[in-house]
Amino acid sequence: MQNPTTLAPPAAPANARQLAIDSQRLWSSLMEQARIGATDKGGICRLTLTELDRQVRDLFVRWAREAGCTVRIDGIGNIFARREGEDPSRPAVAAGSHMDTQPTGGKFDGNFGVLAGLEVLRTLNDAGVRTVAPLEVCVWTNEEGSRFVPVMMGSGVYAGAFTLATALAAADRDGVRVGEALKAIGYDGPAPAAVQDGAPRFAAYFEAHIEQGPVLEDAGIPLGVVTGALGQRWYDVVVTGQEAHAGPTPMKLRRDALHGATGLMQAVRSIAMQEQPDGRGTVGYVQVHPNSRNVIPGRVTFTVDFRHANDKGLVRMDQRLREECAALASAGGLEVSVEQTVYFPPARFAPSLVSAVRSGAQRVGLAHMEIVSGAGHDAVHVARVVPAAMIFIPCKDGISHNEIEDASLEHLAGGANVLLHAMLEQAGIA
Amino acid sequence: MQNPTTLAPPAAPANARQLAIDSQRLWSSLMEQARIGATDKGGICRLTLTELDRQVRDLFVRWAREAGCTVRIDGIGNIFARREGEDPSRPAVAAGSHMDTQPTGGKFDGNFGVLAGLEVLRTLNDAGVRTVAPLEVCVWTNEEGSRFVPVMMGSGVYAGAFTLATALAAADRDGVRVGEALKAIGYDGPAPAAVQDGAPRFAAYFEAHIEQGPVLEDAGIPLGVVTGALGQRWYDVVVTGQEAHAGPTPMKLRRDALHGATGLMQAVRSIAMQEQPDGRGTVGYVQVHPNSRNVIPGRVTFTVDFRHANDKGLVRMDQRLREECAALASAGGLEVSVEQTVYFPPARFAPSLVSAVRSGAQRVGLAHMEIVSGAGHDAVHVARVVPAAMIFIPCKDGISHNEIEDASLEHLAGGANVLLHAMLEQAGIA
Repeated sequence: MQNPTTLAPPAAPANARQLAIDSQRLWSSLMEQARIGATDKGGICRLTLTELDRQVRDLFVRWAREAGCTVRIDGIGNIFARREGEDPSRPAVAAGSHMDTQPTGGKFDGNFGVLAGLEVLRTLNDAGVRTVAPLEVCVWTNEEGSRFVPVMMGSGVYAGAFTLATALAAADRDGVRVGEALKAIGYDGPAPAAVQDGAPRFAAYFEAHIEQGPVLEDAGIPLGVVTGALGQRWYDVVVTGQEAHAGPTPMKLRRDALHGATGLMQAVRSIAMQEQPDGRGTVGYVQVHPNSRNVIPGRVTFTVDFRHANDKGLVRMDQRLREECAALASAGGLEVSVEQTVYFPPARFAPSLVSAVRSGAQRVGLAHMEIVSGAGHDAVHVARVVPAAMIFIPCKDGISHNEIEDASLEHLAGGANVLLHAMLEQAGIA
Repeated sequence: MQNPTTLAPPAAPANARQLAIDSQRLWSSLMEQARIGATDKGGICRLTLTELDRQVRDLFVRWAREAGCTVRIDGIGNIFARREGEDPSRPAVAAGSHMDTQPTGGKFDGNFGVLAGLEVLRTLNDAGVRTVAPLEVCVWTNEEGSRFVPVMMGSGVYAGAFTLATALAAADRDGVRVGEALKAIGYDGPAPAAVQDGAPRFAAYFEAHIEQGPVLEDAGIPLGVVTGALGQRWYDVVVTGQEAHAGPTPMKLRRDALHGATGLMQAVRSIAMQEQPDGRGTVGYVQVHPNSRNVIPGRVTFTVDFRHANDKGLVRMDQRLREECAALASAGGLEVSVEQTVYFPPARFAPSLVSAVRSGAQRVGLAHMEIVSGAGHDAVHVARVVPAAMIFIPCKDGISHNEIEDASLEHLAGGANVLLHAMLEQAGIA
């Protein structure tokens, strides 16, 4: 299955444009990698910077070297496997994603993007195709954030979203810091981690990923040309009333925090429905106090997750939520507090790279549609400092962050082929 | 403070009708009793059948004997302090309540009804008034149900709501059974516990109690003539949708269990509002799965507590809830299950005893209003087998089952005086 370095004479450009990846080899690599941290239910539990993470990193590094790459590790543990270009002075064209998983994660989230990148290099090796610009496959540290926050840590340091020092100081629940955990698994590398500290800027960065949503499957389209990512505003809302006995307290004398809170939760959805198709509104977390079946709730805490393709939409959603909260508070009987806890601006991917993905899909002959990523990805951070774009493939029932997460060989191969041709277009065939 | 038995010559009926209890003695007894299991915040933690329960029972038994009573303990640990009547063959006129508390209970819930009954006997002793019928003060075992279920256990056994064997077999979280706990504190008495097994039927049973709600305080009325208790229907409702990522899942492709559930929770209140002033509807408990801020909830479990003064109203509420659940399920995307877990029929207290309470209030010169108990009480069980009625007094801010539960000396004394005269009317002055 491994490919020794084969720097054969350059193939004709005409041939290169008809290249296709080896879908069985891609699948086999995904399945071999999925054994590290495999769960009984067919998923993966491979938290970042654990012994299992070390094992999967070692496997990737071995595969990358077997494919003729040099390997660079930076100060936050990001791995870059480099296939040299005809012109080593040119910035690299990169692809990548992450290999850490949620505690009950699946086999494809992140891993697909990394191994699709590796498969591109193997395919070029087999065909003896050299590129003008170097190619790199990136493995970003701690995308999931299950063990350490901030999430999307490695790409965030690269792009300067926060400092390397901040990231290294983050501690898990046992008090272990990222810096210690990196050392313990031997991935505290010498290369600069942040672009502002001298980490190389890519000419282009592509990330192939399962959609993690139902849109492509629902539309029956095998490939998503990702034009950007939704902006996000997250909130904590607390509604406070008066805890009282359900029996002796007449309706008109109640200060029922849950009644007020459920009205706001309904409003969250209404606000999102007014912003279709670009807005999303979710209440995912609710805590009721004292949460006893015959006590009128005195306090309810819940979260709001608003997302929108453009910032003006997010601002409208924010205003409407605050208006609803103010109206409830002014109706009397209840206090309402609303606090924004997270803000990510909407991301728009580089038009030239979005176009490269679209051309790739056309070359491969895959039906495709434009799509906006609802979730955060390493590519969203990377897009702050270099041109970036993403390629989505369908996943079964739109499910991810779940051990039953699934994707078909056909869709995985399709996405990897689009990645191959998008990278080739950007890197140039020597 | 204690009163030796004083069977002085009978006082003239005219005097007896002007009798008043010793409010300072009532207050002192309440405060002395409140030391057993006292909490730092001014409440009581005195769970049923614990060492603290033994101490408070021993204190009550001592006081009762000092007041000249004989004491009877039955097989479920109920205590009956009997002041003999001129005609010992007549059924007793009784008063009582309970002395166990919630883990964070107050000083008045239950204790007031017991000590008001004792204060009535002490007052009659002081005045040398004998009654034709015997008087009894009852202490019912395990009203609160915090340690053992069923709640209202001692009165439930008395009335045949469930069997003595069932009650004795109930176990707490450590596996200790009621039967063992009774033996351990020495209150497994020889007297029959159930009326059906030969426990004496009272001629009348009165229970004085704090309202545990805000109605009297809101109306500025110091005494409630309780005409009955609301019926209750409790439900568990489960709404099942599809757990999915908040980001990548468009609004129109969601199966958001929480959106469906919050709509039903709003309906619970609407249903109750259509049944004013007799109906109540409460959602007290909500559990969201997986309860993560960026995951659309896949399953929500919540409870419904419906109460109504009459059974037809309860049936209407039941029907409307089921209609709302069916409508949500038939809209597609969500499954809804609704299961009734508890049913208590509405209780109507004996008109003759309700009238005795009203007359008592008039005699004492207390403003009063009719009120229906929203909560369950021992009197509701007792009313199944003998004529019963209740006397409510206001509690501060309607709060109980809370260490800050409070009631004024004036209101406590007023309630005890009404109890005195209602009991005298029923027992007859010798």
